[in-house]
Amino acid sequence: MQEVDRIITGGRILVLDEKESHIRDGIVAIDGENIVAVGEKKELENRYIGREIIDASGCLIMPGLINCHNHAAMTCFRGIAEDLELGDRLFNYIFPAEAKNLNEEPAYWGSMLACAEMIKSGTTTFCDMYIFEDETAKAAKKAGMRCLLGEALFDFSSPNSQTPGEGLDYTRMLAEKWADDPLVNIVVEPHSLCTCSVDLLKDAKALADRYNIPYATRLLENRGEREQLIRKFGKSPASFLKDIGFLDERFIAFHCVCIDEEEIKLFADHGCKVVHNPKTNMKLASGVSPVPDMLTAGVTVGLGTGGCAGNNNPDMFAGMDMAAKLHKVHRLDPTVMDAGTVVRMATCEGAGALGMEDTSGNLKPGMKADIVIINLNKPRLTPIYNEFSHLVYTVNGGDVDTVLINGKVVMRGRRLLTIDENEVMERVKEIAVRIRKNLGSTA
Amino acid sequence: MQEVDRIITGGRILVLDEKESHIRDGIVAIDGENIVAVGEKKELENRYIGREIIDASGCLIMPGLINCHNHAAMTCFRGIAEDLELGDRLFNYIFPAEAKNLNEEPAYWGSMLACAEMIKSGTTTFCDMYIFEDETAKAAKKAGMRCLLGEALFDFSSPNSQTPGEGLDYTRMLAEKWADDPLVNIVVEPHSLCTCSVDLLKDAKALADRYNIPYATRLLENRGEREQLIRKFGKSPASFLKDIGFLDERFIAFHCVCIDEEEIKLFADHGCKVVHNPKTNMKLASGVSPVPDMLTAGVTVGLGTGGCAGNNNPDMFAGMDMAAKLHKVHRLDPTVMDAGTVVRMATCEGAGALGMEDTSGNLKPGMKADIVIINLNKPRLTPIYNEFSHLVYTVNGGDVDTVLINGKVVMRGRRLLTIDENEVMERVKEIAVRIRKNLGSTA
Repeated sequence: MQEVDRIITGGRILVLDEKESHIRDGIVAIDGENIVAVGEKKELENRYIGREIIDASGCLIMPGLINCHNHAAMTCFRGIAEDLELGDRLFNYIFPAEAKNLNEEPAYWGSMLACAEMIKSGTTTFCDMYIFEDETAKAAKKAGMRCLLGEALFDFSSPNSQTPGEGLDYTRMLAEKWADDPLVNIVVEPHSLCTCSVDLLKDAKALADRYNIPYATRLLENRGEREQLIRKFGKSPASFLKDIGFLDERFIAFHCVCIDEEEIKLFADHGCKVVHNPKTNMKLASGVSPVPDMLTAGVTVGLGTGGCAGNNNPDMFAGMDMAAKLHKVHRLDPTVMDAGTVVRMATCEGAGALGMEDTSGNLKPGMKADIVIINLNKPRLTPIYNEFSHLVYTVNGGDVDTVLINGKVVMRGRRLLTIDENEVMERVKEIAVRIRKNLGSTA
Repeated sequence: MQEVDRIITGGRILVLDEKESHIRDGIVAIDGENIVAVGEKKELENRYIGREIIDASGCLIMPGLINCHNHAAMTCFRGIAEDLELGDRLFNYIFPAEAKNLNEEPAYWGSMLACAEMIKSGTTTFCDMYIFEDETAKAAKKAGMRCLLGEALFDFSSPNSQTPGEGLDYTRMLAEKWADDPLVNIVVEPHSLCTCSVDLLKDAKALADRYNIPYATRLLENRGEREQLIRKFGKSPASFLKDIGFLDERFIAFHCVCIDEEEIKLFADHGCKVVHNPKTNMKLASGVSPVPDMLTAGVTVGLGTGGCAGNNNPDMFAGMDMAAKLHKVHRLDPTVMDAGTVVRMATCEGAGALGMEDTSGNLKPGMKADIVIINLNKPRLTPIYNEFSHLVYTVNGGDVDTVLINGKVVMRGRRLLTIDENEVMERVKEIAVRIRKNLGSTA
């Protein structure tokens, strides 16, 4: 008998390797940060003894969800600019609100609120792009969440940097400061091809190469952007990125709504990663990304929610539901984006998109213990014929009971163990009072 | 001081009459089945005294949601046929499963499970179309839910009737039996123009006229159906319905995905009602209903979820989110289907679609007390700038704390008071074991 820190027992375990399969009565053994065994209870119960037993009877045990695109601190702005034209929304609401209100304090507390929401809805890893990202890193570290985050880099000033050089310096600081952290990972994030000069893109790539870390940008979010970039570069945006040496396996492109067939092939050939954000793309009326085509071409596609000023809700279960349904209706084909494919986008494929495929997104010996336990004992989750369809079409974040990240229990019976939920809500409410007051004078 | 049965106090009250408005600190006074007063606390607290006080501090008080299209008992089949072509799905899974398993028992317990789910996600009224609907009526009555339900009528036999005549007789029985019930209302429901002869449609209309009750059918759910009907009738389906005298204010058409401009005008001219089911239409890849055009033309459009074999989840909040986002991305216009419009579709407009606009779907003196209290004290609902956008884009059914229907509290602190949740789940699990066994031999 091997003694381990924790054993999760009594529940059914979602198996991602074989399509639509599960272990009916399984055990997950965890020691330190890692999963050491996953399998049938009857095979493992005499091999491992746990210092702690987590009873998952009547539950589904699955890998933690990976939210590949968020702007965590934007929880502070959730709902300030709804159902508006893009320009009106950005220039009359979002940008002024950021300029007047954003500094370290809302960045930290907004990020902490996002971490609370994400853990409570089953997300264990998130990728973030915003400003004051050191505050987001501190919040994630305190919350015990795994993350990949970067400071948004622009040609113009942001509330956190006067020049592109300052943004790059801040990113370098992040990369050095968090280099050895078990949870916080850094990505270099030029904001988009519209808001970054070619020099800034090249500098960003050089920085990512120097630290051997991922780099990411928003790309081809809507038709207007595509047209603008083709006018600017005289070629397709992906061809341009290829020409400046930007396409490789550490490159992550957020959105890719208006990516064409030739660009998808370029991405596939270079091993580039894509993050699909169906809820944001729908709410902002950006369009429908050709995700099924990217998957067919062999591009790794993760799933993201976008920030709370855009999508309002970082619940990845709601995002999975949207991802499955959007493409079915868009293509008038109910077989595309089947539930198994979508669950993998939110777990193992998402990990692949962030370069974390060896540590996260699946329940296997040797991987980090990032685990979510879903309470199935509810009318809405009764009966259960198919785990994958349940997860995509019925479960929501509120059904998550217990969450482990890096081997540590961060939520048990829906009670957060790393975050004082009431304190966070109070702080964000105070910040919102100031934001609302400032909004009054701009909008 | 007037003594009343119940006073809900301390919360903000959603106001539907003026767009994007609310009462910050309000009171709802309820006596018997009815709302007697709604207004500012400071104006009403000295006028009404409640035998019971419901404290809604930190909550949002809103009208109960109206799910205008469900097949309640199909909870029993949730997840048996996913991501499949329509014909494959129906002929190899759904129809055989119904033929082998459906009788009074699953109809009752499946409906009861649906009632549990609906109440727990804030729905107070539902419209149902299925078979063995007397069982659904009994379940709704026991659950204390308001409903409008009818037996699906076909040219062919169903597990509950051998002939169209038997289906009409069963409907007549329902109309007589439930005529004076405060909660259960009956609708005549020929299944669709593809599955009902012209004689059956006319008989159904005559029956509805005799009892002066609504009549409803599935209409134009996808392109295939539209093409088939045009071939069959030699004219547009709505023109055909007009010619047989089917179009009037008591006519409710479910789906209307493939309705054209001329048909929308016919519907508007005749006061016909439409029910939009975005989640089902998306999952089954039926297409996108021109809802914004119908609203512009003045057609009353309610919102429905469809049954759990199609959409898997009768949570109307998820349906509202989908309704708002689907049309924005489909039209590449973020301003269509704004949050206020969508909330009204799920409340007062839904009531209008079901002919219940005088009793349900709004919080006004004289209306029935069908009320939902949302707990806003959660990270995911913090901060709040805009009630409507919160309800559509962030709230889900799990945020509902307390539900009143017809003046009676049916859920308090998420505990159902009219339904033994565990018993219902056990019964449906037993039924599912049989269904699964039978599936093995067909699919």
